[in-house]
Amino acid sequence: MSAAKIGIIAGGGELPILMAEHCAASGRPYFVARISPFADVALEAHPGVSLGLGAMGARMDALRAAGCEAIVLIGQVPRVDPRTLELDAGAIAMLPALLEAAPQGDDALLRAVLGAHEKAGFRVIGAEAAMADLLAQPGAWGAHAPSDAHRQDIARAAKVAAATGALDIGQGVVVCDGLVLAVEAQEGTDLMLARVAELPERLRGVAQSRRGVLVKRPKPIQERRIDLPTIGVRTIEGAARAGLAGIAVEAGGALVARRAELIAAADAAGLLCLASPRPTWASPRARNERADFSCRGRSIWGCAGR
Amino acid sequence: MSAAKIGIIAGGGELPILMAEHCAASGRPYFVARISPFADVALEAHPGVSLGLGAMGARMDALRAAGCEAIVLIGQVPRVDPRTLELDAGAIAMLPALLEAAPQGDDALLRAVLGAHEKAGFRVIGAEAAMADLLAQPGAWGAHAPSDAHRQDIARAAKVAAATGALDIGQGVVVCDGLVLAVEAQEGTDLMLARVAELPERLRGVAQSRRGVLVKRPKPIQERRIDLPTIGVRTIEGAARAGLAGIAVEAGGALVARRAELIAAADAAGLLCLASPRPTWASPRARNERADFSCRGRSIWGCAGR
Repeated sequence: MSAAKIGIIAGGGELPILMAEHCAASGRPYFVARISPFADVALEAHPGVSLGLGAMGARMDALRAAGCEAIVLIGQVPRVDPRTLELDAGAIAMLPALLEAAPQGDDALLRAVLGAHEKAGFRVIGAEAAMADLLAQPGAWGAHAPSDAHRQDIARAAKVAAATGALDIGQGVVVCDGLVLAVEAQEGTDLMLARVAELPERLRGVAQSRRGVLVKRPKPIQERRIDLPTIGVRTIEGAARAGLAGIAVEAGGALVARRAELIAAADAAGLLCLASPRPTWASPRARNERADFSCRGRSIWGCAGR
Repeated sequence: MSAAKIGIIAGGGELPILMAEHCAASGRPYFVARISPFADVALEAHPGVSLGLGAMGARMDALRAAGCEAIVLIGQVPRVDPRTLELDAGAIAMLPALLEAAPQGDDALLRAVLGAHEKAGFRVIGAEAAMADLLAQPGAWGAHAPSDAHRQDIARAAKVAAATGALDIGQGVVVCDGLVLAVEAQEGTDLMLARVAELPERLRGVAQSRRGVLVKRPKPIQERRIDLPTIGVRTIEGAARAGLAGIAVEAGGALVARRAELIAAADAAGLLCLASPRPTWASPRARNERADFSCRGRSIWGCAGR
């Protein structure tokens, strides 16, 4: 990424936080235009401003005043009835283009919004390109390499995760010595790791003798994947407490928050951390589907809610 | 079952407890010969005696003295090195038959043990026949009947449970409005229900407006199924706390502990409780495999440990 200041127009969810933290960690100048009330409160720790969805004009003014040369739209914005929004002059000026695009679907609407920003003088960066640095790189990332036992558990967990993903259940699975210890559904990875830590010790590893792995992989669904699995320092800590030997994700199929910190934490705890190249998958992901970090499918105006 | 007093020769696990409680609840005279140290401590609340595995003679004497006309072997007994056992005279007398049967496998060994008991004058009841009363009966058991929404959640959960069972993960799945809230692996049903109760309320039901179901079904594996899913009052209580609308199992594919109590608890909490006839299954279960509640596969002498 160049050193030009980037304006992160932030919807809800975790991705804008990852983006902001990444800019901060890599020294890239940035400014976060938080869309109220969707943007996560964690973003308030970053330089920026909070404005309602309909304050398009004010948002562009703030981005310009902050010196943002480029912008990226990132995060989830649920479906809103436009009649409930307070539209400022900038939004009203956009309305004709938005109303024309809306019946054509979410993609058209998003393109219209981005087009309006380009017309206002901003360079638009695709969320995909912006987040590329956070994608999991293939290989073992830290000091620890996988043994044959690790590889077997990883293979089993990957297979189970593919099955649970195909059933639209969740992304995470923990396997120890071939036994599936836990399957993630709606509780989240942190709680799943916490319950593994509570299992009888004969079923799992312990700090002095680590066994088993956590695998997180994307669901193999045909739609654009908005929800790439994410791992961070908290994942390492949870896996360490659960006595696990390591964590494996899919190369290009996971986002890594605070990569340097994560690798240091894994090394210190004695955990391996790696990304495997994606195995043969039944869906045409390789060709047509790419990770989509934008609001696409959840576009800023009249989009499908979560 | 007839009213003749039955001697329950109890190995480890839950099944002997279910058997004993069922006899107590149905007024059938019984006596529990607990095999130390495998039998669950809960069995000490029942009339009986505790004796080591090698005390075959003493056990038969105790059963006879207690007036047991019939016996049933039930529960898990792990593999033991016979040289570590203290054998009494009765066990020593059995040795030739056992040593001849042992090389022929677990089934042969179990038959030899049962044969020795028949020779000693006891009528041997198969565990399957003895537990038949505890099998889940088809239909809705209590006051509450399933709605279409319930049926849809049940169907989804049953399908997911079939998939996770085929992967040898676990038996329980919770689904609410089509969303899989939780998948049981090694933590057990009670803990799974506890975590459902902790999920955000927008994802699940609440006491005043119950939504979602727990489905438990047997794993569709080819071996004899030792581990039929079990449900009891605690399952009802956990499901109630999780805001679920009900519980569904497979007719003939689950054991129901304290049936009358369970149905009363479900009715009181407003939960439906039902067993569905087994849908078409890929394995030949219908013909060749029956629920096996005995030690078969984990026979009393030299059997495969868990």
